[in-house]
Amino acid sequence: MQLIEIVEKLKKGQSGVIDFKLNNNPIILSAASFENAKENDLSFIDNNSELSIRKLIKVSKASALLLPADDEFINEQLNKISIDWIKLKEPKIAFAETLEILYPSEIEKEGIHKSAVIGENVKIGPGVSIGANVYIGDNTDIGGGTIIHPGVVVYNKVSIGARNIIHSNSVIHSGSELGEECVINANAVIGGEGFGFIPTSSGWKKMPQVGIVILKNKVRIGSGTTVDRPSVGETIIGEDTKIDNQVQIGHGVITGKGCAIAAQAGIAGGAQIGNQVILAGQVGVSNRVKVGDRVIASSKSGLVTNIEAGKVVSGFPAIPNKLWLRCSANFKKLPEIAKAIRELNRRGSK
Amino acid sequence: MQLIEIVEKLKKGQSGVIDFKLNNNPIILSAASFENAKENDLSFIDNNSELSIRKLIKVSKASALLLPADDEFINEQLNKISIDWIKLKEPKIAFAETLEILYPSEIEKEGIHKSAVIGENVKIGPGVSIGANVYIGDNTDIGGGTIIHPGVVVYNKVSIGARNIIHSNSVIHSGSELGEECVINANAVIGGEGFGFIPTSSGWKKMPQVGIVILKNKVRIGSGTTVDRPSVGETIIGEDTKIDNQVQIGHGVITGKGCAIAAQAGIAGGAQIGNQVILAGQVGVSNRVKVGDRVIASSKSGLVTNIEAGKVVSGFPAIPNKLWLRCSANFKKLPEIAKAIRELNRRGSK
Amino acid sequence: MQLIEIVEKLKKGQSGVIDFKLNNNPIILSAASFENAKENDLSFIDNNSELSIRKLIKVSKASALLLPADDEFINEQLNKISIDWIKLKEPKIAFAETLEILYPSEIEKEGIHKSAVIGENVKIGPGVSIGANVYIGDNTDIGGGTIIHPGVVVYNKVSIGARNIIHSNSVIHSGSELGEECVINANAVIGGEGFGFIPTSSGWKKMPQVGIVILKNKVRIGSGTTVDRPSVGETIIGEDTKIDNQVQIGHGVITGKGCAIAAQAGIAGGAQIGNQVILAGQVGVSNRVKVGDRVIASSKSGLVTNIEAGKVVSGFPAIPNKLWLRCSANFKKLPEIAKAIRELNRRGSK
Repeated sequence: MQLIEIVEKLKKGQSGVIDFKLNNNPIILSAASFENAKENDLSFIDNNSELSIRKLIKVSKASALLLPADDEFINEQLNKISIDWIKLKEPKIAFAETLEILYPSEIEKEGIHKSAVIGENVKIGPGVSIGANVYIGDNTDIGGGTIIHPGVVVYNKVSIGARNIIHSNSVIHSGSELGEECVINANAVIGGEGFGFIPTSSGWKKMPQVGIVILKNKVRIGSGTTVDRPSVGETIIGEDTKIDNQVQIGHGVITGKGCAIAAQAGIAGGAQIGNQVILAGQVGVSNRVKVGDRVIASSKSGLVTNIEAGKVVSGFPAIPNKLWLRCSANFKKLPEIAKAIRELNRRGSK
Repeated sequence: MQLIEIVEKLKKGQSGVIDFKLNNNPIILSAASFENAKENDLSFIDNNSELSIRKLIKVSKASALLLPADDEFINEQLNKISIDWIKLKEPKIAFAETLEILYPSEIEKEGIHKSAVIGENVKIGPGVSIGANVYIGDNTDIGGGTIIHPGVVVYNKVSIGARNIIHSNSVIHSGSELGEECVINANAVIGGEGFGFIPTSSGWKKMPQVGIVILKNKVRIGSGTTVDRPSVGETIIGEDTKIDNQVQIGHGVITGKGCAIAAQAGIAGGAQIGNQVILAGQVGVSNRVKVGDRVIASSKSGLVTNIEAGKVVSGFPAIPNKLWLRCSANFKKLPEIAKAIRELNRRGSK
Repeated sequence: MQLIEIVEKLKKGQSGVIDFKLNNNPIILSAASFENAKENDLSFIDNNSELSIRKLIKVSKASALLLPADDEFINEQLNKISIDWIKLKEPKIAFAETLEILYPSEIEKEGIHKSAVIGENVKIGPGVSIGANVYIGDNTDIGGGTIIHPGVVVYNKVSIGARNIIHSNSVIHSGSELGEECVINANAVIGGEGFGFIPTSSGWKKMPQVGIVILKNKVRIGSGTTVDRPSVGETIIGEDTKIDNQVQIGHGVITGKGCAIAAQAGIAGGAQIGNQVILAGQVGVSNRVKVGDRVIASSKSGLVTNIEAGKVVSGFPAIPNKLWLRCSANFKKLPEIAKAIRELNRRGSK
């Protein structure tokens, strides 16, 4: 595809084309990271990239670059090189749009594979694709345009909205409700039984888990992630919340809209997560903790008490990020601190 | 169902009905959490609930409540409201029993789905249900009443006792032995090869993993949990031990009876866990560590040395919980502590 | 099998047979750990075993032992007991070889199970075994001798080399490339979409993930482990790198050769791991961090900045292991330290 074609398409997108230079109007065959780009590749430099990255523009082998519009350093460099470029308000969004242009999604075959097993009273919308060896339980609804890849198991009485993509060998338990345009990655489990046992003199008594899981529109669930259903009521993942791989969402958790939850984070039963919360990798949130809107918890932190909206927290137990950075810096000095105290005591006792 | 029917059934249960008031004898259609209960709902307040919860009894919309028997505060409130109630020794157990009454388990269709693939010399007990696209390997035994959901793979020479429930897309490797009344949740892996490699000058040499995994009666395995088999001998999960989602049990681990292991905990190879041990979320136990009976390890703790029976531990490396709480409180003061020492030194050097 | 037969086979192996004593030349029926070995068992004591282990040689019920060649304590004991033994340079390697001798791998049935679904234009090498309910997508190649267990899903355009073993219900996404002699354990996911979303005023915009995952020869992937593909370019796992269960490998990660990555470790997007790196359980590596060759990171550590080759690190943020041990020892003394400062201040202010 000629670069000019990409320019024309980006103008209709959301990245804000400001200017472009097409001296060569090269053929763009693929996209690559800035460091690895070679001839016939398109790449990008994001707003606020590190100087060490931006300096590489002089030696880039890319045939075209998506660039931040108002970067003085880059603008200077451009005078010295012959590479074609497009300047944008949002180069990263432009790169995402270019990937969509260069690599259109494979179209799944419509229809139900003959090896799939479909239960009784299943409603299937138009344009649905159901892959090999899929099992769909009784009384389940599948909205139009949804793609269910091979090996997925959907239990009974599940409601799946339109245009979902469910990857292979995921399992969706009875009663679960998926909105529209959700993506469930491979080997995820939606609606498994919550972990509820009551100690008795004769051992653990199981609390029945008769609640359900609700995923609102545009929820994204990572590979191997598990979202448990509660004993009563609902576990709810809010609209446009994106969840990475191997995340555990306990029974009765409620998350707001637009959150991002990174890999191997765990949210214990009954916790309530606000809107646009960001949890980094391996974070833990304890039972019933309330996390306010726009909270950011850095990697490996543990949120054991409620966190107010807008806070950035770190560590375990989580404290304000800036305080934690200072504490961590001093943790390294603990042997010195202990030694200083021994010396002060010695001096004092003289 | 009328409330009086529930009372009669609870009297035959284990929750200890002490007293009840049935002014309205309402129809109970569903159960709900105390905060969310509305008309025709039954809910409960547990023994030792927080006062902030118990205070809500005045505004509860529930039609019936299961209540602790001897709670003075609640007893006072009851004089002021018209809600029907049942007082019990164990309100939470009563709530679990009520859920069993109101939401009986779906009965699985008996028999073997025609798409299931059954190996040679497989023994299948009476009343077994084997779902769609299940694979059962050669020389495997399946005890009476066991339910195997769609997509499960059982390798060769597996022994599965009576009345197990195995959820979809779980995998059970060769030689594994499951007792009776175990629950294996979706996408769990029982008996995968342990992680054993010996460094040599030409790279890693694999230690063959020819041992097996044994799950005793009433073991519960969470979604996505993995239990590895050892090079020789057995990995054993003790009777009535309950394991949450995404837990890793290394090769040759032995756990006692009645343990509870929360989500994303990991137990490394050869560790020995006593009876009634509780490991909270994201806990780690190192190789060959011995954890005594009734130990409680709080979330994210790391047990790197043996822990004596009955201890409550926290932190990494794990130390007594009460000490850890004081240390954590002081961790936050490390910048102040460092500053105080600088000042003491300055003063001292004058 | 008679012990002499095992001796003859070990002589052809890599463990370095130095000497042996065959008074009884017992029949060896099985292998066991040193503590559990009984009659007709063979077991081993490794080089540098703890004295408390080596002392047990006097009471061992094993019929034969693989022993370190130059262990004075053991040599003394041997004069007092009648057990048959083989002395070796590498007893642990000899034990691994003995397990291979005593427990040969089950031979999988060659051929394609009739319930497997094979796409169009799939190339299948000689001696391949494809199990029940497997799905193989279009344009996929499978090298000779590869074993694909029941329930595996392979998407389109995947390249699988010779002699791989892929365990049940694993999922391998489009475009993935597997070398030779890899082992993918159950419920692993190779090549799932990376976690890339760009914040915009109307919510998250997905960065398309059009890159691929490459596993070099002899890579081992644990049960439930996930290896994500990047937006552009490759995620690469180096030759002979061994990965345990429930590990998360983010998009665009590159690992070197011969690494060992223990259970529940997580490597975030774009991190670069050198050769022969060892990451212990529950370790985290942050985005784009570079970890040098032969680094060892102890359990639960968090690598947030680049780590130089050869370092042994611990803690979060990771610091040199020896420093961390001293800091941790002092962490326990924080309440005392704080108290000492209060007293020093009191004294000073008098």
